[in-house]
This record gives sequence, C-alpha cells and structure tokens, in this order.
Amino acid sequence: MTSRRQPVCIELPDWLFDALDFQRAYATGEQRMALAISLSARNVEHGGGPFGACVFDMRNHQLIAAGVNRVEQTGLSVAHAEMMALMQAQRRLQSWTLRADSVPGCELVTSSEPCVQCYGGIYWSGIRQLVCGARRSDVMALGFDEGPRSEDWTESLQKHGTAVKTDVLRDAAVEVLQAYKKRGGLIYNP
Amino acid sequence: MTSRRQPVCIELPDWLFDALDFQRAYATGEQRMALAISLSARNVEHGGGPFGACVFDMRNHQLIAAGVNRVEQTGLSVAHAEMMALMQAQRRLQSWTLRADSVPGCELVTSSEPCVQCYGGIYWSGIRQLVCGARRSDVMALGFDEGPRSEDWTESLQKHGTAVKTDVLRDAAVEVLQAYKKRGGLIYNP
Repeated sequence: MTSRRQPVCIELPDWLFDALDFQRAYATGEQRMALAISLSARNVEHGGGPFGACVFDMRNHQLIAAGVNRVEQTGLSVAHAEMMALMQAQRRLQSWTLRADSVPGCELVTSSEPCVQCYGGIYWSGIRQLVCGARRSDVMALGFDEGPRSEDWTESLQKHGTAVKTDVLRDAAVEVLQAYKKRGGLIYNP
Repeated sequence: MTSRRQPVCIELPDWLFDALDFQRAYATGEQRMALAISLSARNVEHGGGPFGACVFDMRNHQLIAAGVNRVEQTGLSVAHAEMMALMQAQRRLQSWTLRADSVPGCELVTSSEPCVQCYGGIYWSGIRQLVCGARRSDVMALGFDEGPRSEDWTESLQKHGTAVKTDVLRDAAVEVLQAYKKRGGLIYNP
C-alpha cells in the first residue's frame, strides 16, 4: 500500500519557469495581463489548455508565482491555471491565506474569467485583487463548460474583500482561445 | 531559482492510511458515511479541521481514496477534505475525470456539504454520486464561511450527471463540528 501514501505532487513545466522573470516590475495592468496571456499561448504550443494565470505582489508589481492549465498532464481536474498559480504563491509565501500579515497584498491576473472551481479557490486564497482577460462567454463559445458560477460572482468577491476587474486585453486573450480550438485541442466536459 | 521549480506536493498524514481498509466492502450508505465522519473526528484529534471525505467504487463499495482537511498543515487553501480525496482518487485511477471508460463509477462521501471551491471541484471531477452528512448551515453555525455557493447547487450537479444525497448521519457529523469548536479549533475566514 506504499503507493497510496505518496503525496500528490503537482508539477509545472520547465518551459514555464524558463519564461518567467521574477525580478521585473510589471508596472501596468496591461503588462501583467500580457504575461498571463503569453503563458496561455505557450501552454497551447506545449499541448496544454489555453489558460494562464499569474500572482503579483501589489506593492512592487513583481511576479510571485504563475500557473498554466495542466489537467491532462497531471491527471488532476484541479490543475486549472488559477489553482496552480495560487498553490505556488501560497507555498512560496508560506501561508494558506494571502491575507496574512506576513505576506504582501496579492493580485491574481488570469487570461480568462474563473470557472466555478477557481472562483471558489480564489475566494479562500486571500487574493486581494482579481483581473480577468477573456469573459466566461468567450470560453463557453469554445465549447468549454464553465460550471454554475453564481450570477453575482464579482459582487460576492468584492464583499469578501477581493476587487475584480474584467475585460483587460480581452481580444488578445480570445485570440489564444480561438487558436486552441483551431488546433483541435481537447475541450473538457463538453 | 531552483526552489520555485519544485512541484507542489500535498501530503495526507500517516495515521489516515493506517486507519483505512481498502479491502472492505462498505455495503450501506451509513457505513460509508460513518467512515468519512470517523476520519473527520480523528483529524480533529490530530489538530486538523473537522472534515473528512471518501471516494468509493460504486460497483463493490470498496474505498478508492480518502481525504481530510489539511489547510493548516499543507499551507494550501485548496486542501479541503473533498479536494484531497478527489486528487488521490484521480491519481490512483490515473484519470482526471472519474467518468472515463477506464474507471468505475465513483461516489464521494463527505462529512459536511461542500463549500463553493469543493462544489466546483466536484463538478469537474467526474464524480457520479455525492453524499453529504452535516449541512452547510451546520458548518456556518460554527462560524465557518462556506462561500457563495449557488442556491440550486444540488440541481446543477444533478443536471451535470452527479446524483446528490444529503443529511446522511447528519447528527453524528454535527457532533464532530461541535467538538472542534469546543477545542477552540481554527475557524477559517471567519
């Protein structure tokens, strides 16, 4: 029964870390979103889903962590881009809440609006600000099911202390979704 | 930068595996729920949150995987009992969806109704049947925030192909929640 005791390890690909610059200050919201979208595009090139997400330090706009969709590669339905980035950020900052006094305020920048799972993950993560590129409707136009996220999701997050901004570089984010569809990429739970 | 490349590994405690019998057939729904509740109780004894969850093979009612809340111990807000059990099950069955032809139909039995994150996680996991002990209102009476789960969560899951049963051994599940509160256990996001 030894194998059952093994921890579940969730890996990000080497190319991702090769692409990241943890020293740079991504001064504008567009620069931060451009990074998330570029990771989504590269993930498609590497056979992954068309989603990328980054966690930034809100004080200096430096990158804390990044993630891409790794559902197929890891064999785990939790491995959405936002969840990957949040797990990496919490491990790096050594806190299960990104609102602890010991950690800087954190912003999650994601190439597409969160599905219901990532919405819930964001809710508990302690993220202070959420910024989205493509809309839920753009993702669903591809054939992806986004799940039954509540209609007032932005208001709920805001009441919970997480500011939400949508439609940042939406067109560029949608281009990656369309490129993925053109390649015949796997559409989960269609 | 080597440390950033390390995978995020999510461990369950040794006592959990010592407590599990993967050969036994848990023939009744109450037997299966009693196991999930007993794991929630033991997790409290070991300093964890009052939540336990198990994934069963629906053909023979044998245990496939189990999880307990490990948010504090792992430093990850994703480490709710249901998510831990689902990750373990997907790794064991080598499929990111528990509806693949290669895997048996799977039932998730959880000591309390899922929060919004676990609800989303269940949605994508491919679980065929969800069985809950304590209600959301029982968990919230403790002071836990369960997040903005949509009102029609059971209907949404059922439409998605996941049968839902609630209130199984609810009183026994609530007892563990109350014992946790009495011990002064940490209440997340109060």
